[in-house]
Amino acid sequence: MEKVREIVREGRRVGNEDPRRVVHAFKVGLALAFVSSFYYYQPLYDNFGVNAMWAVMTVVVVFEFSVGATLGKGINRAVATLVAGGLGIGAHHLASLSGATVEPILLAIFVFILAALSTFVRFFPRVKARYDYGVLIFILTFALISVSGFREDEILDLAHKRLSTVMMGGVSCVLISIFVCPVWAGQDLHSLLASNFDTLAHFLQEFGEEYFEATEDRDMKEVEKRRRNLERYKSVLNSKSNEEALANFAKWEPRHGVFRFRHPWKQYLSVGALLRQCAYRIDALNSSINSDMQIPMDVKKKLEEPLRRMSSESGKAMKEMSNSLKKMTKSSSSDIHVVNSQSACKTLSTLLKSGVLNDVEPLQMISLMTTVSLLIDIVNFTEKISESLHELASAAKFKNNKMKSSSKSDSGSISSAVPIKSHDDDDDDDGHVVTILSDVVTSNNDDHQSHGVSSVDSCHHVAIEIVDDDSIHEKHEEDSTNIHVHTSRVSCGITNASGLLDSGDKKNLIIN
Amino acid sequence: MEKVREIVREGRRVGNEDPRRVVHAFKVGLALAFVSSFYYYQPLYDNFGVNAMWAVMTVVVVFEFSVGATLGKGINRAVATLVAGGLGIGAHHLASLSGATVEPILLAIFVFILAALSTFVRFFPRVKARYDYGVLIFILTFALISVSGFREDEILDLAHKRLSTVMMGGVSCVLISIFVCPVWAGQDLHSLLASNFDTLAHFLQEFGEEYFEATEDRDMKEVEKRRRNLERYKSVLNSKSNEEALANFAKWEPRHGVFRFRHPWKQYLSVGALLRQCAYRIDALNSSINSDMQIPMDVKKKLEEPLRRMSSESGKAMKEMSNSLKKMTKSSSSDIHVVNSQSACKTLSTLLKSGVLNDVEPLQMISLMTTVSLLIDIVNFTEKISESLHELASAAKFKNNKMKSSSKSDSGSISSAVPIKSHDDDDDDDGHVVTILSDVVTSNNDDHQSHGVSSVDSCHHVAIEIVDDDSIHEKHEEDSTNIHVHTSRVSCGITNASGLLDSGDKKNLIIN
Repeated sequence: MEKVREIVREGRRVGNEDPRRVVHAFKVGLALAFVSSFYYYQPLYDNFGVNAMWAVMTVVVVFEFSVGATLGKGINRAVATLVAGGLGIGAHHLASLSGATVEPILLAIFVFILAALSTFVRFFPRVKARYDYGVLIFILTFALISVSGFREDEILDLAHKRLSTVMMGGVSCVLISIFVCPVWAGQDLHSLLASNFDTLAHFLQEFGEEYFEATEDRDMKEVEKRRRNLERYKSVLNSKSNEEALANFAKWEPRHGVFRFRHPWKQYLSVGALLRQCAYRIDALNSSINSDMQIPMDVKKKLEEPLRRMSSESGKAMKEMSNSLKKMTKSSSSDIHVVNSQSACKTLSTLLKSGVLNDVEPLQMISLMTTVSLLIDIVNFTEKISESLHELASAAKFKNNKMKSSSKSDSGSISSAVPIKSHDDDDDDDGHVVTILSDVVTSNNDDHQSHGVSSVDSCHHVAIEIVDDDSIHEKHEEDSTNIHVHTSRVSCGITNASGLLDSGDKKNLIIN
Repeated sequence: MEKVREIVREGRRVGNEDPRRVVHAFKVGLALAFVSSFYYYQPLYDNFGVNAMWAVMTVVVVFEFSVGATLGKGINRAVATLVAGGLGIGAHHLASLSGATVEPILLAIFVFILAALSTFVRFFPRVKARYDYGVLIFILTFALISVSGFREDEILDLAHKRLSTVMMGGVSCVLISIFVCPVWAGQDLHSLLASNFDTLAHFLQEFGEEYFEATEDRDMKEVEKRRRNLERYKSVLNSKSNEEALANFAKWEPRHGVFRFRHPWKQYLSVGALLRQCAYRIDALNSSINSDMQIPMDVKKKLEEPLRRMSSESGKAMKEMSNSLKKMTKSSSSDIHVVNSQSACKTLSTLLKSGVLNDVEPLQMISLMTTVSLLIDIVNFTEKISESLHELASAAKFKNNKMKSSSKSDSGSISSAVPIKSHDDDDDDDGHVVTILSDVVTSNNDDHQSHGVSSVDSCHHVAIEIVDDDSIHEKHEEDSTNIHVHTSRVSCGITNASGLLDSGDKKNLIIN
């Protein structure tokens, strides 16, 4: 009894996690009941007889959760059945020419060779990814037809009937999966990526709060809840296989909704991989919240301003990217936050150069520096992710946002104004800073600078003015078409772990 | 033509990667040719007729690469066919009682309900992991039998024949996969884990060389080759799904070779997860080799001795663990390297406290401290991995090594001598250090100290003597039964990322 209740609870959990699962179960039941009725509908039965069972088998085996997976399996099965049927009849014909004693031996040899070859081919990574099921069905059908021991005219009839029933089963599956509450793998991949952006953004926006607040006087339950909420990012760490499977299925899907047939699903995987790299850093950062507990708050506070800004601005950038992904627009609204986080990086390095940490204990220093370096990494990753998303946006032909953006910028001597929003929880500084980024080196030189080597000396990034909120806003809107920020010059001076990634040459980003 | 050559090349690569794949292909061909001959062996054909095709189908679908996977699928298929057959006959009987018009409707409803329920159950994570195939076959068989439209005595005959042929196919698969060049998933998992240990050990042992050598004057090809060799560890990063699949299959396998039926495969996954965590740190460390290029060598050299020792001793510990895993012996030979790496950690912290880095530029400091903190992390992980492997060794009842080890140590005031082997590439220090570890706090207190908080003040670890190699060796062997090292006191003072891991309370390790 306890066992039954547990199963029911588990069922409810699985259903709540994704209600489409319940719908899917109903769809399979429907398809199967429909195909089973072939046995009873007399004209059909007369035609196909026992072969109607192949329709049932096809439905059970082919019907998958998403349209892409169902289509993929259906097409694999249909093509494999056709090819293997043809080959099987050929083999049967060839063997039958050789007389009654040699025939079975010859057929066994054919089966052996084709089965061994096909089984070996299934180990090819590319075949395994997309055609594994097809090769399986190929072996199966070939073996069944070539050895079936019937006369040839019978076999042709058999092959015809089997193929028709497989088609009927397959087509029912595909139609039901497309027209009854369809689950598109492509849509799922798109949403998964957007939600991964969201969870990382959430962590980064909350990190400052969590790292710099004393936890002693807070409600334990509250803390627990915040903690659990923060650690939602952990799902991103293991999203690789899921993303790959979805992308694989999505490739089979026809045009649906906003997605074209050849939507650049591969680029989704690149963005996803970068996000995951970033999530690894966040994972380490999360554990540093715990291990840095022993660092006195007054030591931490020395770096509070830039660290908070680095994480919150990266978080905002991610949030903006998530929004533009969800709306499928080409938006550059995240770029400004990327630049802001990089400027905070620069502030941090100035602060560190000023020797503010000279009297800190070495062991605390190691711990603190690890946090610092992780945040720098994350800022760098945010830029890479933003670039990768821009590539995705242009490959997928996302709509342009209302604001105009020129697609090419002549680099060279660039001087531009960027508003930096102060974060809300910083009371002593309510004004907004305009930062002048001046870059006197032409971009041709830096595009060739080797990746992974830091450019400590190449930051020309100075905050010069404090103005109030409204006037910035105006300035920003007026100048929106001709503000160019050459982000590759505003790098933080330290690049960690960049050797991992094959991101291409840095690009000029345009802020508007 | 070019295409064909490419396929052949790919085939050769796939075959070389694991020659057992070729053998597997032959085995499948053999099994299929064997089962196909049922059609031709007259007494068998008379008995089973067309139903012989179920044997062919079973072989194609059930025969997998490893014994565990084949057995798992075979058992799933057999049980599911049996249960679904029974239920199908029952449903058919029930429906036939209700008259000719209601019968098809009733049957369609049965099929709908069972198909929907089973499809939903396939989403349960535990079912998906082990019984997915069984549930699929259950739906299939139930649908086929309940709607088959035959009279009842025919159905019983049909069910009997189908079950026998499925059994024949399944049993052929299982026998061939067990007795012809068997591939045991358990053995594979075991070897995979050992090789993961090896690749990490290799990186750690080479790290010092790579980090502290100037690369300018070396042959570029040589450097490339070393690099590729170092980066073999990358395979460990993505080993999760592979390990899980193998463990899943291994659970189905009977006793084979040195592995019992209930070998603790789950513990392999725990050790593997810790290794992977460690590999993430190594990945970051690898990129710091590149990004720390710009740090002047004289700055790096200040920390060379402890850093080199930390990485090489962790590497040696891993190597020893790999060896004891390969030989399946309970060995504590790795513990001494764990302790050594921790003592190097302590040396490092003393060095840092002495202010040796006071004049280093902040940005270089961040970079250097990241490397330091990663190595500290790795040392801590090495200890955790060693503990986890000890647990595995006792759960799997590995043989004891020749050396005796007492299984319980009374902690309290402990004082013990541990030889530290100097690493080969350190010319100026050829003697060997005996380290006295004195611990005055009783272990009861520290077992309850909360995890993740460092114990900076609790290291009582001083190097006091330099002696030559032979005398240490003697001392070590003589005292092997009563040297106790309470490793949890010799922690490095900084624990990073430990929040990730649910390792239990620290244990006393016994060095012998």
